Amino acid sequence: MTDGIHILFTTDEKYALRLPTVIKSIQINNPYANVEFHVVCDDMSDGMKENLLSFCDRIGVTISFYSISDDLFKDAPVNRYYSRTMYYRMLAGDILPEEIDKIIYMDPDILVINPLIDLWNEDLTGYMFAAASHTVEDSITDNINRIRLETLNVYFNTGILLMDLKKCRDKVRISDINQFIADNEHKLMLPDQDVFNALYGDLTKQISDAVWNYDARKYTRYPMISKGLYDEDWIMKNTSILHYCGKDKPWNKNYRYRFGNIYRHYENICRRDMAEGYVPESQ
Amino acid sequence: MTDGIHILFTTDEKYALRLPTVIKSIQINNPYANVEFHVVCDDMSDGMKENLLSFCDRIGVTISFYSISDDLFKDAPVNRYYSRTMYYRMLAGDILPEEIDKIIYMDPDILVINPLIDLWNEDLTGYMFAAASHTVEDSITDNINRIRLETLNVYFNTGILLMDLKKCRDKVRISDINQFIADNEHKLMLPDQDVFNALYGDLTKQISDAVWNYDARKYTRYPMISKGLYDEDWIMKNTSILHYCGKDKPWNKNYRYRFGNIYRHYENICRRDMAEGYVPESQ
Repeated sequence: MTDGIHILFTTDEKYALRLPTVIKSIQINNPYANVEFHVVCDDMSDGMKENLLSFCDRIGVTISFYSISDDLFKDAPVNRYYSRTMYYRMLAGDILPEEIDKIIYMDPDILVINPLIDLWNEDLTGYMFAAASHTVEDSITDNINRIRLETLNVYFNTGILLMDLKKCRDKVRISDINQFIADNEHKLMLPDQDVFNALYGDLTKQISDAVWNYDARKYTRYPMISKGLYDEDWIMKNTSILHYCGKDKPWNKNYRYRFGNIYRHYENICRRDMAEGYVPESQ
Repeated sequence: MTDGIHILFTTDEKYALRLPTVIKSIQINNPYANVEFHVVCDDMSDGMKENLLSFCDRIGVTISFYSISDDLFKDAPVNRYYSRTMYYRMLAGDILPEEIDKIIYMDPDILVINPLIDLWNEDLTGYMFAAASHTVEDSITDNINRIRLETLNVYFNTGILLMDLKKCRDKVRISDINQFIADNEHKLMLPDQDVFNALYGDLTKQISDAVWNYDARKYTRYPMISKGLYDEDWIMKNTSILHYCGKDKPWNKNYRYRFGNIYRHYENICRRDMAEGYVPESQ
């Protein structure tokens, strides 16, 4: 039994519908770890919170909710491009209780299919975060991002982050974020990811995207960039986090990519858990 | 909690390697049922039995082994075409203890992805077995099988059988099986399946193959024969048993069909369970 692994989601009402599937996938694939879930929520209804609480209660995991004080954002340049939710993961140190000093942040459009313990134990000496860069992107995109954001680092995908919250509490300032947005508004494309890369890219340790942030759209690209190594067999054995990046999502009926079936399988396991015993659908 | 569901496998040493994956898939997808496993084994080593016992012990399920008395087969025409294992499922009534009066037989090349309770509760009034016919086969094959075996029934696939063992104890006679083989040796193609269909086809209730015995090779055929209904989304929600029929098996590296990934995922969950806590492979 590992000591607690803490997982952070930041979500609105709509994406909260995806959390049971992620939570269940973490539970099934981390049977030897004690995992606790933390949700920073923006405009989530009491009904949704109750649903999530009762689901977690039924499957025997702990979940906590955190609402955000408006004070935290009184100076933020919030407009239709830069919503408050983009700040939440960067400000997790200020939002979560002091006794939590490390956390794995996850986007809700992911599925965990192998243990998280190696990510949790990743050595962050000299770094504040660990994140993956999508190696399947071509290097031109990567270079454009470097020039655009004036960094020397690879461009990190912020969908999965291991965060040293102690260092975050020391170093992450909402005023830095606000200033950076004000100075660069015209050239930001993916606001939260761009801000993260520009301000904290050099404090971020690169981890394998094939293992920790596998872009599920690109299953034909991965074998190509790895001389055939990252085939489906390897992915099933070694990849811990499938990330359903992009517009097409596996909870939509028309999703046709390779790893849609396994997502749907976990979604269906949850549907059964939520039904308090199995109530078969009419066939 | 449902009263016990009994599951039967009949296997040799080689196929026994596949049982943990099947057992684990049954456990994960039947959390509200108490499932007990029974294995009729042919030439299984003590080491293999111990492995299976310790695996089942670790995940908290019950498994029992039954060896076969040579007496049962003293008059059987066993040769290289008709091995003893083919008899085991048909003779389950004689092999298993009297107190078990119903059982679901499963081939070891399957994966359970939804609950089995509706199969278990299938009404067998007037029947001895329930089984599916592979509707994805064309009707010519089905008609050839009818003529070949002189039956009026559909040709049942015997990979999944719900068995009323009380009726089996009354009606299944090894002498009938021996006689049928002796009389028809020249025209049998799949011996155990042919014998079953010829002798017991009219005592078998037809159940949906899309739900209970989905031929995983034929994932492009199922939508075609169902006007689009049996798409991947439907399969993930409604199919309980994926059957990896044919020569290509999902535990082989070169398996390329659609449902290989979910099989590999369960295989990998078992590998972790067998490792007594998670020991990561080098990546």
